[in-house]
Amino acid sequence: MKYFLLLFTLLSSSLNFSQEVSRKEILVQNITEFNSAVSSAKPGENIIMASGVWKDVELIFKGNGTKDQPISLSVEEKGKVTIEGKSSLKLAGEYLIVDGLYFKNGFTPSNSVIQFKVDNDNIANHSRVTNCVIENFTQPSRDVQDHWIEFWGRNNQLDHCYIAGKSNSGPTLRVFLKGNENINTHHQIINNYFGPRPRKGGPHGETLQIGSSETSMTPAYVNVAENLFYRCNGEVEIISSKSNFNQFSHNVFFESEGSLVLRHGNYATIDGNVFIGNDNSEFIGGIRVINTGHWITNNYFYKLKGSEFRSPLAVMNGIPKSPLNRYNQVTDVVAAFNTYVNCISPWHFSVGSNVDKSEVLPATEIRSARPERVLLANNLIYNDKEQNFPIVAYDTVDGVRFKNNISNSINKSEVQDKGIITKDFKIKKISDYLYVPVENLTEVYSGFDFEKIQEDIFGTNRTEIKSIGAVSLPVEKDQRLFELSEYGPDWYTPVKESKKSKIFKVSTTDELLEVLQKTASEDIIEVKSGTYKLEVSIPINKKISIRSEKGKKKAILQFSESNSSPAFEMNPEGALKMENIILKGTKNRDAFGTLKENMSSAYNLWIDNSEISGFKNLLKVSQRSFADTISIANSTIKDLQSGINLAEETDDKGEYNAEFVYITNSNFSNIKEEVLNYYRGGYDESTIGGNLILTGNTFKNSGTSENTEILLKTRGIVNVVFSDNSFIDNSVKYIAILWGEKGQKPENNSIKNSGEIKIEENLKQKLMY
Amino acid sequence: MKYFLLLFTLLSSSLNFSQEVSRKEILVQNITEFNSAVSSAKPGENIIMASGVWKDVELIFKGNGTKDQPISLSVEEKGKVTIEGKSSLKLAGEYLIVDGLYFKNGFTPSNSVIQFKVDNDNIANHSRVTNCVIENFTQPSRDVQDHWIEFWGRNNQLDHCYIAGKSNSGPTLRVFLKGNENINTHHQIINNYFGPRPRKGGPHGETLQIGSSETSMTPAYVNVAENLFYRCNGEVEIISSKSNFNQFSHNVFFESEGSLVLRHGNYATIDGNVFIGNDNSEFIGGIRVINTGHWITNNYFYKLKGSEFRSPLAVMNGIPKSPLNRYNQVTDVVAAFNTYVNCISPWHFSVGSNVDKSEVLPATEIRSARPERVLLANNLIYNDKEQNFPIVAYDTVDGVRFKNNISNSINKSEVQDKGIITKDFKIKKISDYLYVPVENLTEVYSGFDFEKIQEDIFGTNRTEIKSIGAVSLPVEKDQRLFELSEYGPDWYTPVKESKKSKIFKVSTTDELLEVLQKTASEDIIEVKSGTYKLEVSIPINKKISIRSEKGKKKAILQFSESNSSPAFEMNPEGALKMENIILKGTKNRDAFGTLKENMSSAYNLWIDNSEISGFKNLLKVSQRSFADTISIANSTIKDLQSGINLAEETDDKGEYNAEFVYITNSNFSNIKEEVLNYYRGGYDESTIGGNLILTGNTFKNSGTSENTEILLKTRGIVNVVFSDNSFIDNSVKYIAILWGEKGQKPENNSIKNSGEIKIEENLKQKLMY
Repeated sequence: MKYFLLLFTLLSSSLNFSQEVSRKEILVQNITEFNSAVSSAKPGENIIMASGVWKDVELIFKGNGTKDQPISLSVEEKGKVTIEGKSSLKLAGEYLIVDGLYFKNGFTPSNSVIQFKVDNDNIANHSRVTNCVIENFTQPSRDVQDHWIEFWGRNNQLDHCYIAGKSNSGPTLRVFLKGNENINTHHQIINNYFGPRPRKGGPHGETLQIGSSETSMTPAYVNVAENLFYRCNGEVEIISSKSNFNQFSHNVFFESEGSLVLRHGNYATIDGNVFIGNDNSEFIGGIRVINTGHWITNNYFYKLKGSEFRSPLAVMNGIPKSPLNRYNQVTDVVAAFNTYVNCISPWHFSVGSNVDKSEVLPATEIRSARPERVLLANNLIYNDKEQNFPIVAYDTVDGVRFKNNISNSINKSEVQDKGIITKDFKIKKISDYLYVPVENLTEVYSGFDFEKIQEDIFGTNRTEIKSIGAVSLPVEKDQRLFELSEYGPDWYTPVKESKKSKIFKVSTTDELLEVLQKTASEDIIEVKSGTYKLEVSIPINKKISIRSEKGKKKAILQFSESNSSPAFEMNPEGALKMENIILKGTKNRDAFGTLKENMSSAYNLWIDNSEISGFKNLLKVSQRSFADTISIANSTIKDLQSGINLAEETDDKGEYNAEFVYITNSNFSNIKEEVLNYYRGGYDESTIGGNLILTGNTFKNSGTSENTEILLKTRGIVNVVFSDNSFIDNSVKYIAILWGEKGQKPENNSIKNSGEIKIEENLKQKLMY
Repeated sequence: MKYFLLLFTLLSSSLNFSQEVSRKEILVQNITEFNSAVSSAKPGENIIMASGVWKDVELIFKGNGTKDQPISLSVEEKGKVTIEGKSSLKLAGEYLIVDGLYFKNGFTPSNSVIQFKVDNDNIANHSRVTNCVIENFTQPSRDVQDHWIEFWGRNNQLDHCYIAGKSNSGPTLRVFLKGNENINTHHQIINNYFGPRPRKGGPHGETLQIGSSETSMTPAYVNVAENLFYRCNGEVEIISSKSNFNQFSHNVFFESEGSLVLRHGNYATIDGNVFIGNDNSEFIGGIRVINTGHWITNNYFYKLKGSEFRSPLAVMNGIPKSPLNRYNQVTDVVAAFNTYVNCISPWHFSVGSNVDKSEVLPATEIRSARPERVLLANNLIYNDKEQNFPIVAYDTVDGVRFKNNISNSINKSEVQDKGIITKDFKIKKISDYLYVPVENLTEVYSGFDFEKIQEDIFGTNRTEIKSIGAVSLPVEKDQRLFELSEYGPDWYTPVKESKKSKIFKVSTTDELLEVLQKTASEDIIEVKSGTYKLEVSIPINKKISIRSEKGKKKAILQFSESNSSPAFEMNPEGALKMENIILKGTKNRDAFGTLKENMSSAYNLWIDNSEISGFKNLLKVSQRSFADTISIANSTIKDLQSGINLAEETDDKGEYNAEFVYITNSNFSNIKEEVLNYYRGGYDESTIGGNLILTGNTFKNSGTSENTEILLKTRGIVNVVFSDNSFIDNSVKYIAILWGEKGQKPENNSIKNSGEIKIEENLKQKLMY
């Protein structure tokens, strides 16, 4: 162990006195030295981890610093110290600082990566984790639950960290409130960059969870401010606030598929946040409200197209006398001074109303308690095109007061109220995503306690300048909604995938196999016409395209019999695009499959303009595998035992095997069993819920096996488009059974000598709660 | 209207400057003048109600005073201004003071007597009601619900008031928290004298209720301090705290049948309170705990003999994922530095555990969630006699930690823990009810946040002096637990019933009737031997005794036929003691009955050493009537159609018609229908629940009517003693069906040619919630 002794002077300029602090720096090379340094650490000391890879280390950082003399853990050179393998960090004590750690290439062997607690008798307080990165440090299997950051204790802080890539079960960051030591926390979660969290295909994919239903009565006082949530797509809740008196201010939610959800607990403040959607997605949400006493002010919503749970503002119906873990009624909520630009229908009331589902749900699940004593005031709605439905109501709206809200379109919603005013005002663009009226709309309503709303989104004093909406004029000429540089560590920039693809041309089986090995992600393999005999199973663990030469005859990939391994084996992060290929098998092998386990992250599979025949299954997946997208387009699929199997998640806990399944303009024939089995079980509302686009296909002579009652199984899948298909001579009872409640209906299909397409209005599902 | 203009000087001694305030006094003679004065009232003005009876006035006191110049409403002479009839007072505005009002001889025509709100747009803040009396201002019918004081708004105060005698449905004082205007209240309820609230015989008889289950998530911050609760016997909850952050400190609960209950909401502080029971009652409780995060410190418990819901400290089991209005699990509760003197078994854990009742209760009623993370520390238990069971456990005790608790008896409870220490210490008496150790027991445990417990019950600093229990030595030589003079108005003293009884001797029917009219309460009428023919119905509306002369032959009261009015008609507050009397009827009339309606308060009936025959019913009551006690002792009852009917409360909402029924050493014969029908319906735990003592009687040749299956019906009655009776030749299937769960069992009865006594373990009852 090397010791550095460093003396330096801190000058406290504001109080104009100086103080000499002795600061000892201790460089540690390995876990033994680390432990030794920690065990003798004194206030003011700085333990420095030497550059290099720290593999399989479970760091316990325990000590008692002081406010003026904290104990620090930092690194020799930022970015050069990586913590890999089965590793974690636990803190306990007072006034600790962790600065610059970088977790990658591994996962935690315990329940968390960074934890503000060693055990119940050793909790961290007044401690800070700053400038750290946790990247893709995800469990091999998505059903293994962990959290990357666990808050315990009081007055702890996470700031300027970059955290991205969690694919497994469990919120990325969770604040625990169990035990009096862990309430009234005043934790600070600020200036962090929460990078992409991929779709999970099941619940427990939150980015932040603060408390739980069991601890939802606790005063938490967690402050979540100035963070960026960038494409946090894990599930319907980006942030799940489950405790009292939390504050969410000046965060940016950028194209994140989900909402800031006030799930349990009360009296949250949501002020000055920015929600940015786009033209394409209906999954990007805003704020969803449950419970009592929240104040939602000065927020800016841009191009949010979601509805119901994913509305820009979703005010839910509650369950009368709700069980602790379900939905309390919304009462005494104020939403004021918010701006909605191009959000079409910003306000959805009585979201989750399900009185009509009482035949399939128990009374304790029926959300019939409408919002009460809710006030919407001084909000601004602007749409480029006339949009006449600012309000979508799923039940009677009788508990909401509207005061001085202004829209530039006429309100033709069922809810008519003098508090929703049509006014033809103009806006101007200030910077990316930021549009403001050309002049202040000054007819401001002043409600009870409104004097608490002192500033607008940019800090302009509201007492002095009156204006409807989030922004008061004047704004600075180049005012921006957010600055990327504010978020995450200064030493780290998230990788942008913008690499150019290389094209490799092959004409023999050996070349093909060799190139498959050496290509980098995004590369393309162009296969000359001819037949390629393949005896192996080809693993796909990167993004790769295989296609025949343009304008030439399709190459034939002829797979031999096999010990049941599939022709192509999808690995985590694998993405295969197959174009203009003829794929042939010899019956007893699957064309595509996944790893049996450790499918730690999602894969993708696109098949276009190809012909596949002579396999057992077209696709057979393992239980915990998850595909973001599976697409079969313009292709011919024939002579298989079975088609696409995405029905291995049978625990009925809301998990499923693929998010998007596109089957378009293709011909299926002689598929003996189901052509598709796409399944999601369990009564869950956390996810997009599976998406099937099935259009323009022909299905012929399939479903001939004795046990095949349904040709295309989609039980539990939420979004289904089912149109323009032909069904000819399929010996099944049902072509499909669609879910009426979710708006599924067949359109423009032709059916000849096949079963019927049935619609089941309500689905009886297993309760998970 | 007379105007007084008064100038006086306020001297603020602490800041040592003087200020001249113009203070206008306006004497008002009637409601018109009152309204006029109110409508023009300005800060600093004092509206004075003229002496006399103000009848049927609905006072609206609305105005805006200031902190330094409040608007006052007071009286010309304290005690000489009474508000009677159908009257009420509503306040709205800021800085109002109400001083010295006296409500009696009436009831409110609305939902409250004094209300800190006129309507939802006119709420009172920073207002004070002081020095007022509300006495017996109860609704004519107990099922009509009201509150005597309704708190709304913020920063209001009730102090030095005397409030007693509410018999009808509804908490005496209720704090409302619905709406953001009514949270974070910081209301002060201090130095009040809550006088007797009689047993109600049903739920909704709380003295204080703060919030409701629907608003139990609100921060209330109500301060209940330095009040006296004197024989507040309304129901099982004297105080029902149903919101967050309430404080209960230095209150005295004197022989009050119920508990301070933390029913909903969390983080209450219960500090320095005194609970005084006696040797006779098992109904006087202490503190009952539900929910999270409460601190129970420095309380002094004396002679509390209750168990289960009425234990000195009852820590309940919760319902897993409880509905909002039922029982949350107890977690993170601290009970420290409390003293228990002669409480036998102070600590009851998992109270309300009812796993064994799953056959009669739905899952949402099963309390199986045991307390978790509960800490008992530094508590002191003293018993005069060896008492070996400080703990009663209704389920496994695995979530409670014990630290440094000291008892002077050996702990032989099932729960054995090093934190319950046996130590033979001595105590001494300081003053009434106050016993302290002769020296401090100084081995104090210091738990998380214990530094918050800065003082003992009398304000002694705990940092300087360490001691187990509520009291640190030294205490002042004549230290008292409480001073009566601190409570209620200075101008009013509650009436003590200590009047001497007069004896009136009568020898003719006319004399008897005349004397019955003119006697005062507590008087005695002595009837000479002979027969008194009575054709009227005798109303009993005071406390009266009728007896034959001592040592002489029993007088015979012979009642004629009648238009169905009873011989004796019990009125509210009526109490009849009949001794050595022969009461005869002519079959078609009831011996005793009640008013058909407006039985605004309880009555009592004692029959001793008498003979009653030839009536229809012995006692027939009306639906809303309630008897505190009915006693039949050493008497002969025969030749009736039916016996005692106390089964008119059939709404099944927990109400019943009598609290105590004693039938002892009496002979019943030739009662054609039931001898007793005593009923309580609905699944309710708010009340003592009815009490029947049935011992030493003989029942003969009864129940002969065709429809009579059960001789003595007691369905739903909680406490039944059933012993040493003889049953001879009663033609019924069952003599009685007892309730096994409540420990009811027949003992030492002899049965000859009668039905059987059955025990039903669990009773299926109508759910009320």
